[in-house]
Amino acid sequence: MQAVAAEDLGTALCIITGASRGFGRTIAVQMSELVRPGSVLVLVARSGEDLRMLQADLTASKAGKAGVVVEYVVADLGVKEGVENVVKAFKRRSSEDFDHVILVNNAGSLGTSCYAKTFTDMADVDSYLSFNVSSTLCLSACVLEAFPRRAGLRRTVVNVSSLCALQPFKSWVLYCSGKAARDMMFRVLAEEDPDVRVLSYAPGPLNTAMFEEASTKTFDTSLKNSFKDMIAKGEVLTCEASCAKLMTLLLKDEYISGVHIDFYDI
Amino acid sequence: MQAVAAEDLGTALCIITGASRGFGRTIAVQMSELVRPGSVLVLVARSGEDLRMLQADLTASKAGKAGVVVEYVVADLGVKEGVENVVKAFKRRSSEDFDHVILVNNAGSLGTSCYAKTFTDMADVDSYLSFNVSSTLCLSACVLEAFPRRAGLRRTVVNVSSLCALQPFKSWVLYCSGKAARDMMFRVLAEEDPDVRVLSYAPGPLNTAMFEEASTKTFDTSLKNSFKDMIAKGEVLTCEASCAKLMTLLLKDEYISGVHIDFYDI
Repeated sequence: MQAVAAEDLGTALCIITGASRGFGRTIAVQMSELVRPGSVLVLVARSGEDLRMLQADLTASKAGKAGVVVEYVVADLGVKEGVENVVKAFKRRSSEDFDHVILVNNAGSLGTSCYAKTFTDMADVDSYLSFNVSSTLCLSACVLEAFPRRAGLRRTVVNVSSLCALQPFKSWVLYCSGKAARDMMFRVLAEEDPDVRVLSYAPGPLNTAMFEEASTKTFDTSLKNSFKDMIAKGEVLTCEASCAKLMTLLLKDEYISGVHIDFYDI
Repeated sequence: MQAVAAEDLGTALCIITGASRGFGRTIAVQMSELVRPGSVLVLVARSGEDLRMLQADLTASKAGKAGVVVEYVVADLGVKEGVENVVKAFKRRSSEDFDHVILVNNAGSLGTSCYAKTFTDMADVDSYLSFNVSSTLCLSACVLEAFPRRAGLRRTVVNVSSLCALQPFKSWVLYCSGKAARDMMFRVLAEEDPDVRVLSYAPGPLNTAMFEEASTKTFDTSLKNSFKDMIAKGEVLTCEASCAKLMTLLLKDEYISGVHIDFYDI
């Protein structure tokens, strides 16, 4: 018998990084429709203008009118101060006001596409790992510290992953290594803390600015052409379709904590 | 029919990081015995005193007397200048003098053992990743840049890996994530550059200062006790036994480039 998904995600505090556009924006939109009135969305990105517009859209939406509150924090997660600003924003909230705290670690960058043998400058690699790996661990740790285990409180941490966490792709050494590190990081968290629900979700190739970047700036020609082919053949997914699967996973809440699930797996 | 290993590693330039003690020291010793006269070992570590003694030992050994040259570089690979000093040392050498260039990325640290939820400070994570991940990619890139493809030149890059690259271990989020990132990094390199032989070797639990650290400083009690049990039961390997398997892999040279091979796999 197939499990029936819960009807909603509860009265939730949802912290979503990289929320200004692409997959993160869609997560914000779909999550706002799945939480109860009294829930709070904290949207994080570097672009204040985009966040302000999304906040306005969501506040004017059915969910906003029903009492879902939308806040945003303009922050660069590649630097310590950026993470601290996000932490300040959600620390103002009391655990008692929610029955579910959800962190979606969606922010990420492709980094420079080049062959591994060209990465002779440590500063470039450090900076990539800081934004894509360190900030993810620290933000997750800060959320779990601010909202410790409490009877009646669900805690969920989502890692937006990629096929690149599992398979090497030519000229994407930064992206592949960063995603592999993140997947492992969240597997360790899941092992350590059975009270936290941890999910690494690979959304598939999405119709986003990032995929456009991959299809034009991939250094390896054969890989670049395969991305272009996917676009030409209409194999690129909409953010909405992929996000809907993620939401179903969260509603059903049956995945094994720490697991990597790809859009095409389900 | 089992392949017969070559008798030696050729006239090699061998760059070995973390060479002052433990597994790295054993690699230096065993490799010195497997290279031809005229070969050069560049030993890298933070402790100049230990390196100086190892250099003296190797220079006085049969290999040293036969004409294997041993140099050392005192360097902290956690900072850009450390990597640069190593690069300066091997750039003095001409590709023409060797038929094999071997880089062994052995340096590494366990980092602080704590549950993932306590890593709220980005600087700690950044610093760990810089030493254990970024420097490995940059050093490998610098070696491949300094010794480009040339007829008659073999190039081998070894990543000293761990079971922790594949499996999550409680309270070792830094170590597991770093090793996972490194494995992926070298898988990407292997995909990109079929001319380079790439091997991730997990040496097993070794009788080293690092394992002593793991068995006393592991935050998770049950994991710490499992390490203590391994010591009590004599299940910890000698560096010599594990290194001998690595040397056989390099001599046979039959592994699939980019693969992760564990001591217990072979």
